[in-house]
Amino acid sequence: MSSPKSNKPKIVTGPGGYILQDVPHLVDYLPDLPTYPNPLQDNPAYSVVKQYFVDADDSVPEKVVVHKDGPRGVHFRRAGPRQKVYFESDEVHACIVTCGGLCPGLNTVIREIVSSLSYMYGVKRILGIDGGYRGFYAKNTIPLNSKVVNDIHKRGGTILGTSRGGHDTTKIVDSIQDRGINQVYIIGGDGTQRGASVIFEEIRRRGLKVAVVGIPKTIDNDIPVIDKSFGFDTAVEEAQRAINAAHVEAESNENGIGFVKLMGRYSGFIAMYATLASRDVDCCLIPESPFYLEGEGGLLEFIEKRMKENGHMVIVLAEGAGQELMSKSMESSTDASGNKLLKDVGLWLSQSIKDHFKKINMVMNLKYIDPTYMIRAVPSNASDNVYCTLLAQSAVHGAMAGYTGYTSGLVNGRQTYIPYYRITEKQNNVVITDRMWARLLSSTNQPSFLGPKDIPEEKKELPEKKPTVNGENSAGVVDIPPVTKEIAK
Amino acid sequence: MSSPKSNKPKIVTGPGGYILQDVPHLVDYLPDLPTYPNPLQDNPAYSVVKQYFVDADDSVPEKVVVHKDGPRGVHFRRAGPRQKVYFESDEVHACIVTCGGLCPGLNTVIREIVSSLSYMYGVKRILGIDGGYRGFYAKNTIPLNSKVVNDIHKRGGTILGTSRGGHDTTKIVDSIQDRGINQVYIIGGDGTQRGASVIFEEIRRRGLKVAVVGIPKTIDNDIPVIDKSFGFDTAVEEAQRAINAAHVEAESNENGIGFVKLMGRYSGFIAMYATLASRDVDCCLIPESPFYLEGEGGLLEFIEKRMKENGHMVIVLAEGAGQELMSKSMESSTDASGNKLLKDVGLWLSQSIKDHFKKINMVMNLKYIDPTYMIRAVPSNASDNVYCTLLAQSAVHGAMAGYTGYTSGLVNGRQTYIPYYRITEKQNNVVITDRMWARLLSSTNQPSFLGPKDIPEEKKELPEKKPTVNGENSAGVVDIPPVTKEIAK
Amino acid sequence: MSSPKSNKPKIVTGPGGYILQDVPHLVDYLPDLPTYPNPLQDNPAYSVVKQYFVDADDSVPEKVVVHKDGPRGVHFRRAGPRQKVYFESDEVHACIVTCGGLCPGLNTVIREIVSSLSYMYGVKRILGIDGGYRGFYAKNTIPLNSKVVNDIHKRGGTILGTSRGGHDTTKIVDSIQDRGINQVYIIGGDGTQRGASVIFEEIRRRGLKVAVVGIPKTIDNDIPVIDKSFGFDTAVEEAQRAINAAHVEAESNENGIGFVKLMGRYSGFIAMYATLASRDVDCCLIPESPFYLEGEGGLLEFIEKRMKENGHMVIVLAEGAGQELMSKSMESSTDASGNKLLKDVGLWLSQSIKDHFKKINMVMNLKYIDPTYMIRAVPSNASDNVYCTLLAQSAVHGAMAGYTGYTSGLVNGRQTYIPYYRITEKQNNVVITDRMWARLLSSTNQPSFLGPKDIPEEKKELPEKKPTVNGENSAGVVDIPPVTKEIAK
Amino acid sequence: MSSPKSNKPKIVTGPGGYILQDVPHLVDYLPDLPTYPNPLQDNPAYSVVKQYFVDADDSVPEKVVVHKDGPRGVHFRRAGPRQKVYFESDEVHACIVTCGGLCPGLNTVIREIVSSLSYMYGVKRILGIDGGYRGFYAKNTIPLNSKVVNDIHKRGGTILGTSRGGHDTTKIVDSIQDRGINQVYIIGGDGTQRGASVIFEEIRRRGLKVAVVGIPKTIDNDIPVIDKSFGFDTAVEEAQRAINAAHVEAESNENGIGFVKLMGRYSGFIAMYATLASRDVDCCLIPESPFYLEGEGGLLEFIEKRMKENGHMVIVLAEGAGQELMSKSMESSTDASGNKLLKDVGLWLSQSIKDHFKKINMVMNLKYIDPTYMIRAVPSNASDNVYCTLLAQSAVHGAMAGYTGYTSGLVNGRQTYIPYYRITEKQNNVVITDRMWARLLSSTNQPSFLGPKDIPEEKKELPEKKPTVNGENSAGVVDIPPVTKEIAK
Repeated sequence: MSSPKSNKPKIVTGPGGYILQDVPHLVDYLPDLPTYPNPLQDNPAYSVVKQYFVDADDSVPEKVVVHKDGPRGVHFRRAGPRQKVYFESDEVHACIVTCGGLCPGLNTVIREIVSSLSYMYGVKRILGIDGGYRGFYAKNTIPLNSKVVNDIHKRGGTILGTSRGGHDTTKIVDSIQDRGINQVYIIGGDGTQRGASVIFEEIRRRGLKVAVVGIPKTIDNDIPVIDKSFGFDTAVEEAQRAINAAHVEAESNENGIGFVKLMGRYSGFIAMYATLASRDVDCCLIPESPFYLEGEGGLLEFIEKRMKENGHMVIVLAEGAGQELMSKSMESSTDASGNKLLKDVGLWLSQSIKDHFKKINMVMNLKYIDPTYMIRAVPSNASDNVYCTLLAQSAVHGAMAGYTGYTSGLVNGRQTYIPYYRITEKQNNVVITDRMWARLLSSTNQPSFLGPKDIPEEKKELPEKKPTVNGENSAGVVDIPPVTKEIAK
Repeated sequence: MSSPKSNKPKIVTGPGGYILQDVPHLVDYLPDLPTYPNPLQDNPAYSVVKQYFVDADDSVPEKVVVHKDGPRGVHFRRAGPRQKVYFESDEVHACIVTCGGLCPGLNTVIREIVSSLSYMYGVKRILGIDGGYRGFYAKNTIPLNSKVVNDIHKRGGTILGTSRGGHDTTKIVDSIQDRGINQVYIIGGDGTQRGASVIFEEIRRRGLKVAVVGIPKTIDNDIPVIDKSFGFDTAVEEAQRAINAAHVEAESNENGIGFVKLMGRYSGFIAMYATLASRDVDCCLIPESPFYLEGEGGLLEFIEKRMKENGHMVIVLAEGAGQELMSKSMESSTDASGNKLLKDVGLWLSQSIKDHFKKINMVMNLKYIDPTYMIRAVPSNASDNVYCTLLAQSAVHGAMAGYTGYTSGLVNGRQTYIPYYRITEKQNNVVITDRMWARLLSSTNQPSFLGPKDIPEEKKELPEKKPTVNGENSAGVVDIPPVTKEIAK
Repeated sequence: MSSPKSNKPKIVTGPGGYILQDVPHLVDYLPDLPTYPNPLQDNPAYSVVKQYFVDADDSVPEKVVVHKDGPRGVHFRRAGPRQKVYFESDEVHACIVTCGGLCPGLNTVIREIVSSLSYMYGVKRILGIDGGYRGFYAKNTIPLNSKVVNDIHKRGGTILGTSRGGHDTTKIVDSIQDRGINQVYIIGGDGTQRGASVIFEEIRRRGLKVAVVGIPKTIDNDIPVIDKSFGFDTAVEEAQRAINAAHVEAESNENGIGFVKLMGRYSGFIAMYATLASRDVDCCLIPESPFYLEGEGGLLEFIEKRMKENGHMVIVLAEGAGQELMSKSMESSTDASGNKLLKDVGLWLSQSIKDHFKKINMVMNLKYIDPTYMIRAVPSNASDNVYCTLLAQSAVHGAMAGYTGYTSGLVNGRQTYIPYYRITEKQNNVVITDRMWARLLSSTNQPSFLGPKDIPEEKKELPEKKPTVNGENSAGVVDIPPVTKEIAK
Repeated sequence: MSSPKSNKPKIVTGPGGYILQDVPHLVDYLPDLPTYPNPLQDNPAYSVVKQYFVDADDSVPEKVVVHKDGPRGVHFRRAGPRQKVYFESDEVHACIVTCGGLCPGLNTVIREIVSSLSYMYGVKRILGIDGGYRGFYAKNTIPLNSKVVNDIHKRGGTILGTSRGGHDTTKIVDSIQDRGINQVYIIGGDGTQRGASVIFEEIRRRGLKVAVVGIPKTIDNDIPVIDKSFGFDTAVEEAQRAINAAHVEAESNENGIGFVKLMGRYSGFIAMYATLASRDVDCCLIPESPFYLEGEGGLLEFIEKRMKENGHMVIVLAEGAGQELMSKSMESSTDASGNKLLKDVGLWLSQSIKDHFKKINMVMNLKYIDPTYMIRAVPSNASDNVYCTLLAQSAVHGAMAGYTGYTSGLVNGRQTYIPYYRITEKQNNVVITDRMWARLLSSTNQPSFLGPKDIPEEKKELPEKKPTVNGENSAGVVDIPPVTKEIAK
């Protein structure tokens, strides 16, 4: 086991190759903290429930495709209420902050953190931090209680406001210390979680009794380890409207192309799932799958061919796809004001397609749809609402139980506590050499646009008989391709 | 290991308490079948994919909440394409049948079985059986191809038609044999899967080279082992409309009660999840949680109390809840024509509530909403569309690989092949003595209506330190309470 | 012209057969009231608008299908702001009450009355009456301002609460007088408008400077004279969901019947329009069109025939249809408890259909859908939102201008002020001997179920050459059949 | 009365200033055509209907706000079935063509023309022209019958395909003559209707017995005379999604601006109605209302001010607004590739706003949403479905009755036949000096951006006492501002 006071990973091992990547606890650096019985014991709703409290030994494996003889591999601590808590109800002073772009479900998470704290643990002091990280030191706070948050899950956006950046560790921890806050709930993407990690380190350095809890938020589903991020289902659902419209436009116009740009700066999950759900898409372009425009095997040749065969087509593009192509193309252009807009790869690519058809003198009607902000701003659907509820409850149970420096997350269908380094070490990406992407290629019947050189080297080196073959990361309920998830040393 | 020719379970064991509950294979009783290379190898979509084929040893554990020192427990065979197949493309003659009530996603499953067979495996002969089991012998068949099914996933219902009952093993297997069908895809609930099991036994008895594949369908999510059934997400989503309307009616009328009856004859998953997703519900009644009307601690007392406090409330009832109460109450009634309608527990209970408020002379406006058929008939949402796609593909890969007598199903986020006996041995139910139901009670703030006598004996006998604590069954992405899943002896 | 102090209709006549059915004015019985310039004159939004104020002579004809040589007929006073107002901003003390059943748009009307009063006329004192008429004397009031009502148009129901009955003229007018209220906005159906009429008479009797304004609300569209009632569009739209579901159920089940009960106690407009909009309906039953069950030409014979031809059908029933049939049938039944539920004509008729198919020993699956409360409770759609806005503004302009005892309503696409007696004298009904119903019959291909005896006598007596042929009442944008609208003598 | 053989307007006058602007008839230039009894007489659906046929003298006034002593003004011929028809069922050979951009309801209109012809009049030969005007001579035709069109009203777009331009009168009329087509239904905007007018003239010149019927289609509602165009309601409804999203984005981000670009190249009806329906918009910019960016009273000053006050705002822009500003701004720019994209006024204006906030060094987050193609492509809602149905039926009744050279359209809630010159003479525009726009200004609280110079001269010259004050054009059910509708000389 790692030294409790250091920031080294806490690793527990067991028989059969069992590894637990544990999360920090307040007693790691404040060893003499008193404990209290969990107030849930007296909650009438739980009075008939047996074994409601999570067993201290419960853990969840990261990989669930296993071999009879394989090692057991990495596990995470299971989330849930504990017999003993490290905070008295009156003592808790919690705060919540939302950072980064909008995502369906933000308000539900906020609502359920507040509800869990107040209904389950009798907490009365909860602050909303206004407008992201910089709200800790530059803005007023918003007092939260169950009445204030009662209906917010039916609205999109975040009632707390959000922003990018603004992370100033010293100012933030000063503010936490000054206000006497002892539970910090930080909702945001990988950058935000990195920020949470630094805040946790500073708090540990100062020896404060403050639990720092991350809740992963990314509409792109690009956070590793966890099954999927909240809001993802809603986003894929909402994207169907745009694809349907593109399909209608394509079919109704002479040589019509419906072109939909979706979110996904670094990972194409929304584009891929929206394509698989719709079945109306002829070509899906994502950042993970390189492509080129001109020449044999290029995108323009494929589009031209499909148009001549079918008379119409639907293209879905994740916003991060083709960025290098665009950069290269734009270098030759000099006009500053033009460039500003052209940075949008969707506009750039649709213009390139138009230019191509002009060049070959073929009538073509391209309709460009960018539903990004319409997707981000909808309220979460029922499935995401339930997900957000359990995620928020898990986060609160962990903090009350004294855990800190963790991200609450779903792993193989179970709520777990994941150490920050696993969340921030790398991004979750679509692996284009595996089955889910093959399914998509098979569904759209588009070429792979890949030469052998494009397949990552590491992939080729995979041993024929890997002990634990699995390693799949699941967005939701579905099989998706292996993602290499290395453990930080 | 069990004898290959018998119908005993095929069990494989391994170190650390590993158990594989395997599924039958055609070679169990037709040992000399030839194999062929999987045609997917030559599919351009898969050309760049490494290790696309599932390793023969891949398995998925049934339980994923584990202890460091616990045994590894039951596993299922992982679904997916195999290197070798037992059917040539030209040889395959498949049929698809849908049985039982409607469920969102039926058409998507049909579409994707057809697409997988034709696009992936080059199969040309696919028959739709019209109107459920009896369609095998009493109706015409419907030829299916990818053009016929192209847009059907955007429509609710099933293009094949469906019915209850009509299972006549001999006639069905005769029909299969007469038509030369060698792959049978059976979509339906637990009764239907039991029927599939019997068909499989008869086919094995006759020594036919026919793969029998079950695809579990139940809008109630009452099939055991699998994470959740397709269409469930869509159903919970659609139920929100009814709950929202009930909430508006309750709040706008003087002493308004909005009363929503949802599906769930034997298990209250839809009611429970719809309640958790909505947050507007004051009382959720499910078949698993007994309650009584009159007297102290009874439902009527609770309703009266809540109405006096808040002036309005929303009640959600699963159709199977309170059936015994109604039966008892109806025995005293004699009029046959009246009884016929009163068999609807929602109408009966809402009438009982009205009678109570009349008795206590208190104004009350109850609005009754039964959205059952509006929920069943919607097309599946994006999430269910992707789910249905993978489910159908898994089913087809298994049959092509020679597996038979299995149900295709999602276990802990992975597609697996499950032997019939695990699907049909018992129902999946909400366990009211565990955490998910406690969450609901805490969310609605309703009493448990339970005395100690109502808690099942078995539960009390659970050892304090069960080696593998878990045993949770997950409906979708969420933690839900332990379900005892015993293996049929 | 009628005497200003009496309650006789105010009639103005002009050349060419022009008749103006005018509304009362405060000066009719308070002749010396001072006037003030309309504060809108100084509103920056109106500063560039010419002729913003409505000309005092503007009127709108009731009938717009005219002959070259025909008389001009009845007209109503056009709604809108006047140069002079009879209330100072500080003097106004308004109240709003909502009565009867829910209807989409109630909150929008409330919001826009408040907005118009405060933004346009600078009014500060506005009260919401809680829970319908009885709220005047039995409940607390709700202070309203533009902040309170800001988002309510996005919610269904009414924030003021509503109830049926509770009309006690003396208590209500006492309450108005005691509180110093001088503008009363009453939103409700024909019963409510009759109540408003009585309140107005009592206020005139007492000589109070109080404007009484009716705003017609009826989801059934059964109020005469006006083009259509607010919420009607939304209701017809929402009804499509139920009809779609019924259609899917009917097509997917063996001999499936989808049976949808819609609103419409006395008039079948929603059923008729929902049927015309859907095109999936085989039979539409409304209160205005009598039918019988048994025997030749009866409903059961038609259903049986259609089922044998097509194998499925969709039936839409307005709740008021077939009431006499049911009453007759129920008389023979004696059990009180049974009858209570059977009063629902939808349940009764679907049971009768089931009994019939049992009798003829034919398999049949009937799925019954009653979306009533799901339709009533949705927020109004965009079209109804704009409609409600203009309706509310017109109501306020009239009261400020000193008009009273009127209902604000849309006539031939123009906002007008209509004297109460025209609103309450009779109901708006579907006329089954005219073109719109013929269109429906033609669309569903259902029989008329009419013998010659069923055609109303009055209809037969219509002169071959009526001077003004028209007399159509339009629900929305569409031609609908002549409705005889006699002027109360 | 005008000469029947010329192309001069057919004008009928009557007492009291009555004017009928009649439409051409086949007998105007083919005086000896035989007539036949209308087959509807024998249609069972109409058997009980009295006076089903429209009286030959029925007409509908263009203006319905009238004065006691005013003249009666312009009228149109009422649409509907006539006693006598000029085509035998077997003789009819109809064709349908759709031109211009997509609009919700196109498929419903196609469906109902086909249904009316086949069910009401027993017509069997109906052709769909593929891809707009050029389909007459450059493409294959699509045979239409009631089975083909049965479900198309549930889909967006047009099954016939559409295109812009391609009008070649000689080729089109040759094609009509060669194919023996004698009823031509042309669905399209003002350009298309002008094309229809020319086709009609050529057909009259050649003396063909061919009825040419226009059906006005414009999602922008910019066609004069008619109440509103089909699809408009649906478009305004669908636009709410974008505005809601913009509102959420604006409120959730620091100094957030939600910027929505809507359709409306020359008239801002969609933007205006969407703004009025939503109530979340702070600024609505339309082509009819000029504005400028810089300096006092400019748009940028207003935005800056509103942002400083509220911290967020929503801007709605019709695509035609600010075009001159953009042109001027772009002239100074020289880069061709840049300009291509910048032609989009939404992108240009949002960039200008961003530049402004950069210049004043104020943080601002603008989210740009262009839902245009998502709005155009949705299926029509229930209200538009009913509207399209009646429109199509009216068009067919007219052609069967021998009328030609007309556009079918709704005037003051009644279906009428309008001579082409009234449809093509000018556009329908929002009149910014009248009440509806004032309502909008009052609702958004935005400045008018108008100096006195911007108010059209003609407006100022309006007499104080215009005999018929009215002249309002209604988009749907609502009062909207006077539109000068001059008759072409």
